[in-house]
Amino acid sequence: MPTLLGSRDAEWLENEYLQARANSIELIETLEPEDCVIQTIPEVSPTKWHLAHVTWFFERFCLMEHDDSYRPFNEDYLFLFNSYYHSVGKMHLRSARGLLSRPLLSEVLAYRNHVDSAMRAFIDQHHADPAVSFKVVLGVHHEQQHQELLLTDIKHVFFSNPLAPQFQTQSPNYKPVEVAHEFIDHSGGEAEVGAQETGFCFDNETPRHRVLLNDYALGNRLVTNAEYREFMGAGGYRDSQLWLADGWAHINEQNWNRPMYWSEETDREFTLHGWQPIEPTNPVTHISLYEADAFARWAGARLPSEQEWETAAAGVTVTGNTLDQRRFHPSAPQSSSRHGLLQLWGDVWEWTASPYAPYPRFKTLAGSLGEYNGKFMANQTVVRGGSCASWASHLRASYRSFFYPHDRWQFLGLRMAKDVP
Amino acid sequence: MPTLLGSRDAEWLENEYLQARANSIELIETLEPEDCVIQTIPEVSPTKWHLAHVTWFFERFCLMEHDDSYRPFNEDYLFLFNSYYHSVGKMHLRSARGLLSRPLLSEVLAYRNHVDSAMRAFIDQHHADPAVSFKVVLGVHHEQQHQELLLTDIKHVFFSNPLAPQFQTQSPNYKPVEVAHEFIDHSGGEAEVGAQETGFCFDNETPRHRVLLNDYALGNRLVTNAEYREFMGAGGYRDSQLWLADGWAHINEQNWNRPMYWSEETDREFTLHGWQPIEPTNPVTHISLYEADAFARWAGARLPSEQEWETAAAGVTVTGNTLDQRRFHPSAPQSSSRHGLLQLWGDVWEWTASPYAPYPRFKTLAGSLGEYNGKFMANQTVVRGGSCASWASHLRASYRSFFYPHDRWQFLGLRMAKDVP
Amino acid sequence: MPTLLGSRDAEWLENEYLQARANSIELIETLEPEDCVIQTIPEVSPTKWHLAHVTWFFERFCLMEHDDSYRPFNEDYLFLFNSYYHSVGKMHLRSARGLLSRPLLSEVLAYRNHVDSAMRAFIDQHHADPAVSFKVVLGVHHEQQHQELLLTDIKHVFFSNPLAPQFQTQSPNYKPVEVAHEFIDHSGGEAEVGAQETGFCFDNETPRHRVLLNDYALGNRLVTNAEYREFMGAGGYRDSQLWLADGWAHINEQNWNRPMYWSEETDREFTLHGWQPIEPTNPVTHISLYEADAFARWAGARLPSEQEWETAAAGVTVTGNTLDQRRFHPSAPQSSSRHGLLQLWGDVWEWTASPYAPYPRFKTLAGSLGEYNGKFMANQTVVRGGSCASWASHLRASYRSFFYPHDRWQFLGLRMAKDVP
Amino acid sequence: MPTLLGSRDAEWLENEYLQARANSIELIETLEPEDCVIQTIPEVSPTKWHLAHVTWFFERFCLMEHDDSYRPFNEDYLFLFNSYYHSVGKMHLRSARGLLSRPLLSEVLAYRNHVDSAMRAFIDQHHADPAVSFKVVLGVHHEQQHQELLLTDIKHVFFSNPLAPQFQTQSPNYKPVEVAHEFIDHSGGEAEVGAQETGFCFDNETPRHRVLLNDYALGNRLVTNAEYREFMGAGGYRDSQLWLADGWAHINEQNWNRPMYWSEETDREFTLHGWQPIEPTNPVTHISLYEADAFARWAGARLPSEQEWETAAAGVTVTGNTLDQRRFHPSAPQSSSRHGLLQLWGDVWEWTASPYAPYPRFKTLAGSLGEYNGKFMANQTVVRGGSCASWASHLRASYRSFFYPHDRWQFLGLRMAKDVP
Repeated sequence: MPTLLGSRDAEWLENEYLQARANSIELIETLEPEDCVIQTIPEVSPTKWHLAHVTWFFERFCLMEHDDSYRPFNEDYLFLFNSYYHSVGKMHLRSARGLLSRPLLSEVLAYRNHVDSAMRAFIDQHHADPAVSFKVVLGVHHEQQHQELLLTDIKHVFFSNPLAPQFQTQSPNYKPVEVAHEFIDHSGGEAEVGAQETGFCFDNETPRHRVLLNDYALGNRLVTNAEYREFMGAGGYRDSQLWLADGWAHINEQNWNRPMYWSEETDREFTLHGWQPIEPTNPVTHISLYEADAFARWAGARLPSEQEWETAAAGVTVTGNTLDQRRFHPSAPQSSSRHGLLQLWGDVWEWTASPYAPYPRFKTLAGSLGEYNGKFMANQTVVRGGSCASWASHLRASYRSFFYPHDRWQFLGLRMAKDVP
Repeated sequence: MPTLLGSRDAEWLENEYLQARANSIELIETLEPEDCVIQTIPEVSPTKWHLAHVTWFFERFCLMEHDDSYRPFNEDYLFLFNSYYHSVGKMHLRSARGLLSRPLLSEVLAYRNHVDSAMRAFIDQHHADPAVSFKVVLGVHHEQQHQELLLTDIKHVFFSNPLAPQFQTQSPNYKPVEVAHEFIDHSGGEAEVGAQETGFCFDNETPRHRVLLNDYALGNRLVTNAEYREFMGAGGYRDSQLWLADGWAHINEQNWNRPMYWSEETDREFTLHGWQPIEPTNPVTHISLYEADAFARWAGARLPSEQEWETAAAGVTVTGNTLDQRRFHPSAPQSSSRHGLLQLWGDVWEWTASPYAPYPRFKTLAGSLGEYNGKFMANQTVVRGGSCASWASHLRASYRSFFYPHDRWQFLGLRMAKDVP
Repeated sequence: MPTLLGSRDAEWLENEYLQARANSIELIETLEPEDCVIQTIPEVSPTKWHLAHVTWFFERFCLMEHDDSYRPFNEDYLFLFNSYYHSVGKMHLRSARGLLSRPLLSEVLAYRNHVDSAMRAFIDQHHADPAVSFKVVLGVHHEQQHQELLLTDIKHVFFSNPLAPQFQTQSPNYKPVEVAHEFIDHSGGEAEVGAQETGFCFDNETPRHRVLLNDYALGNRLVTNAEYREFMGAGGYRDSQLWLADGWAHINEQNWNRPMYWSEETDREFTLHGWQPIEPTNPVTHISLYEADAFARWAGARLPSEQEWETAAAGVTVTGNTLDQRRFHPSAPQSSSRHGLLQLWGDVWEWTASPYAPYPRFKTLAGSLGEYNGKFMANQTVVRGGSCASWASHLRASYRSFFYPHDRWQFLGLRMAKDVP
Repeated sequence: MPTLLGSRDAEWLENEYLQARANSIELIETLEPEDCVIQTIPEVSPTKWHLAHVTWFFERFCLMEHDDSYRPFNEDYLFLFNSYYHSVGKMHLRSARGLLSRPLLSEVLAYRNHVDSAMRAFIDQHHADPAVSFKVVLGVHHEQQHQELLLTDIKHVFFSNPLAPQFQTQSPNYKPVEVAHEFIDHSGGEAEVGAQETGFCFDNETPRHRVLLNDYALGNRLVTNAEYREFMGAGGYRDSQLWLADGWAHINEQNWNRPMYWSEETDREFTLHGWQPIEPTNPVTHISLYEADAFARWAGARLPSEQEWETAAAGVTVTGNTLDQRRFHPSAPQSSSRHGLLQLWGDVWEWTASPYAPYPRFKTLAGSLGEYNGKFMANQTVVRGGSCASWASHLRASYRSFFYPHDRWQFLGLRMAKDVP
């Protein structure tokens, strides 16, 4: 167990649980059953699968592990909705999730209801057991992660359809805001990073430990569409000297010459509100690490290390364009405050220069949940700060998410960093 | 126009049309909207796509070509539901048909209704024009072809789901019948093959022409599961000497060692009624040309040429285990008659030894419909006789269907042939 | 045994053998050891492999089968140089032939010498056995086939090298000759095709049998570079209506827009003499069946069936631009005669409209040599007439070679055909 | 320029140069021209290519950049033998290096002689220019890197040949030595890593900087074949819990169940001396990062970080089983000394837990040589200590090499590490 949540009050725990569960249902309000079965690329899972998998997580790790009398809703679901936990059994092939018309959406919702009933009784009975209360909270954060994926995945599904369906039919509610870019200095020296001893965290944020930093500067805001377009106009995608070798190979193989969801004419981008004009002051998003890195090099800057980012973000209140705003798209800073480090939270995950690796003396969670994070510590890169599809309650300074350098289907963008002489 | 249908009576034409349209709707009775969007392999199209494409066929080639006042139901559908007619515009990528949650099934049904209304008026007005009546009948036969595909495709969709949904929930209504295999001699000499001048035919059945045949013999019935299992037990899949070189390469690359839908234990097969015990006296099905050819060689026989098949079938009434029986699976001969060439019609398409090639002096249909058949005359092999998913009204002795030698997802089986000294 | 060669005179047989063997050595005169190991694509075999494989053929099917005292030169060679005869043992992977630096060229030449010595004694002793003399002659024709492949393969090897080495350093010795294209009529009716009962033939040319032909016309000469360039200029590669569906898919996947060895500027072509200007009156070559078929359709013609070709070629003396001329490239007709069917022999193999299939009552050779031809009778198309890389002694009217529709690395071209009303 | 080499004495510089050049020639003593052209996998380059590329490096970056009068030996070689320096021009496709029979080995040797002559004059004239002397030394180290690759690549070439040629025909000269495994403690705290200011280094070793380490322990020797076989026997390759997720996917896709060069029976391994019995006390080699990591986890240990390794190695004399011994294979410690950290240098590169990333404030070399190292800082992992194919003069404590986690064709092994409480 990475954190000392202690035994939690039953009511608090049930509220957390029910809120997370209700949030998932809210997110599918505009979707039809047919929408919920599509898998466009292996990274994308069908909506239905997300709804079932997060349910399986509670069923498998809470109900089945701590309640001998519990019987699975459907034995086949243990196979179908296990994502990657080899220690609890075999699983359906990830890339084949879109081949399943059954269970129907209605059946998945019945599964959710069944597990919700069982979980309410379960929480009532077991909340004083800290191992249980930790798992319930972990399950809540797990469901929040999949709510983000549900959004980015349905975005890709609708993007792949020439009819360009809209997840949200009303107009996006953000306004253009110009904020001059400037670098803000931070002193180096010895710093502490990693999760604090209070509140929830994932195992990969532990143990808290000291690091040495040089003096550095971070951009006061995210890189914008306007700035990224300038990079493109300057031939950024054609200049091999700006790119990591693997990135150069990748963009040429894939014929990439713009962010993932930009139209060929680079005037519009696909959003959860359908095709929209590209707003210059919004943060650029849906770019790979390779593109973020090339942009920063072109701009005479670099990506921040995750330690630099975390040290600068420590103590900054988690507020911004998060899922709580239901804006469903990154935006220029909408608040009146225009100074300090803007857009740390929400909007887009910020690519760092840090390969995803274990912290010194890192230990995975005991048991099957040890497969949650640790085994992915190869070939991926840390991103920080959450996105417009993350709940504020899900984020904190020490939070580490991670993607492959070529991944683009998430809300991914960048903030520049610099050495300070 | 390959045949002289003449101008048809409006009522007859409308009846043909409405019957075909109603048949499609009958076939989806047991399906849920989610079932209708899945594409498991490029060869398989979603149910929804079939329902829309056959509608597009009438809209595009009847309404849009012959009625200036007609406006397409949805301009995007002209792109989405064109299959392979380059001459009438661009088309959606075949392998991406399963990425589309929209249009919803309900929207596709509305499309069907819209076109049906328009077609009824259209037939009323234009039935006397032989070019029109031919196209309406062609569209009917086209829809019948897609009804067969709809069935074989949903079968693959359900097979790909570990939950193994059933298209038909009642038990299959056939009984085991042992019929001794024997060869029936046919005299060779000069024969005529190809479509007669009456009734509908596709262009690839024309022109009727003379051929020279040696004396030959055909099996009195289809090869059964029991016989095929014997071939397997004798090591048929491990003996390179039995196989065409491309077949040997293919079965080794794909690790094929049994018919497509047989369970690993070879005791059950997946059917439209779900997993069922393999009935020994039923015809073997879902085998490739390579497997049919290897079986025949192992049995000391060969596949018939399409000319041999057609000559033997000429004049035999089209009756048998066709879609009209709603049996949805090949079966042993169910009628009391046990002599003559059994199972010529329905049950399974019979692989022939004949590459699919144009008949001497073959001409494609004029205009866009010239793309219907002719351009596929490479790399495919002729199959004959229809299957349990073909309507009897759709079949005739001169009918030529065709698949790639490695195709297995259709109801494909074989009848043996032999030289007669 | 397809033909009755009878028992042959020992001297005649040894001469045939030694001539074929010497011809192979003559062909590698200009090559360096490094040239002889390269495999650029799976279809291409290294020169060294050809030299060894044809030797293995004699060792395996003559010496090892008929002489109990013979010991293989090197047991490993039985594996390395078996091409596709499963019945005599396992074999090295075809696509891995280019991974072998050993045996060295010098070791392969030693292998050849060893087998040559053994074969001379063997012929002396066994020539009266018709099974043996047939196999020796078969081995000679087999070596002639590989001499052709050796040339087309080294051409591809040199083409794949930016240094563009020349197999022949002197200039090509042909001159431009304009011959007006005209169609020459042939009467249809009943005809006989297949090998005559005298002289050598492969099993796939048998049995001789009757066919029915309509009246038809054949082009008096091969299609030229000038004509093909006209097709290209008219947008032939961009008009889907001209193409077989598989061909259209293939040229778009491969980005084909010209014959294989033409430069991007379409002014030069790569030849065994290196890069040379494209001579307009030379036959177009290195085109696939798809391209030949599209050209013919564009020109309002079609490809001949193999029966039409054979019937027209029957009785025409085998003479022309064959390997005997050592011209190493197809050319306009160089002789003074300008009438009749020109260029039937040599220059380029002529694509036909005939899928490669067994003749009625075809039987493969007995034993392992049954794998020689029959198992390739799927997915390939018959070509006729030989090329500038075939020896005249290797050709005859009934000779059937075959390639996949997408193959281009051989000397492949076309002659047009037409129906005669 | 990463280090201050200062202006070097001409004689010293020329000696360094000539020694490195002579070493390359020594390494190909046993090879035939045919051996030098083969490329078995994209990672492997033909011997001939290595010999030419290192020559191109001197020609391109010394002669062409600093001597206006120099004319390239062959303009085409600038294209053919550029590896990945986009800033100096286009280059031949890496995976196509094995398609080139020309230039012949003899021509490449002539190229080497030509450049050697020019370089001797060049060194004489320019040695006092520190930019030049640095580049010459860089070129020497570059050639040393390719000498290692030349050996590992020809090993793969010979391994891929069923004839199993031997690079060295005499027996390997090492003896079995049992050394008990024990962990040796190292104190943590603040440490300095990165290149010292004296002597040659690559840019990726700079700048030297401080890091914080916890107390840790390193294995006194490399993991042996015997230990690795124990891991295999315990089902290591079948237990998903031991593996990184990407590793588990990779070994299952590739069907890996043993080190790359071990025979299926796991009794022999392929070496530069051909197939040899696996010596239990020798270090295990030709394993991927995934396998090294899984082994360490199974053994209750972990891989060292590169900082831990470097700190422990700092000050330890570079001596051991390096290429200077011409042993061509990793071995148990052959010296009498049996205490301290054994086998730090030579034998096998040691996988670390450190993703290959820039040091804080890292700057690439100016100009084209900036492409040498920096652009590979993604998706790769640092390895340390050199191998039996590295020259001792090429190694130092700060030296960082790097490979992809799945790479196995180099001499790659592991030393275990542990936290000290």
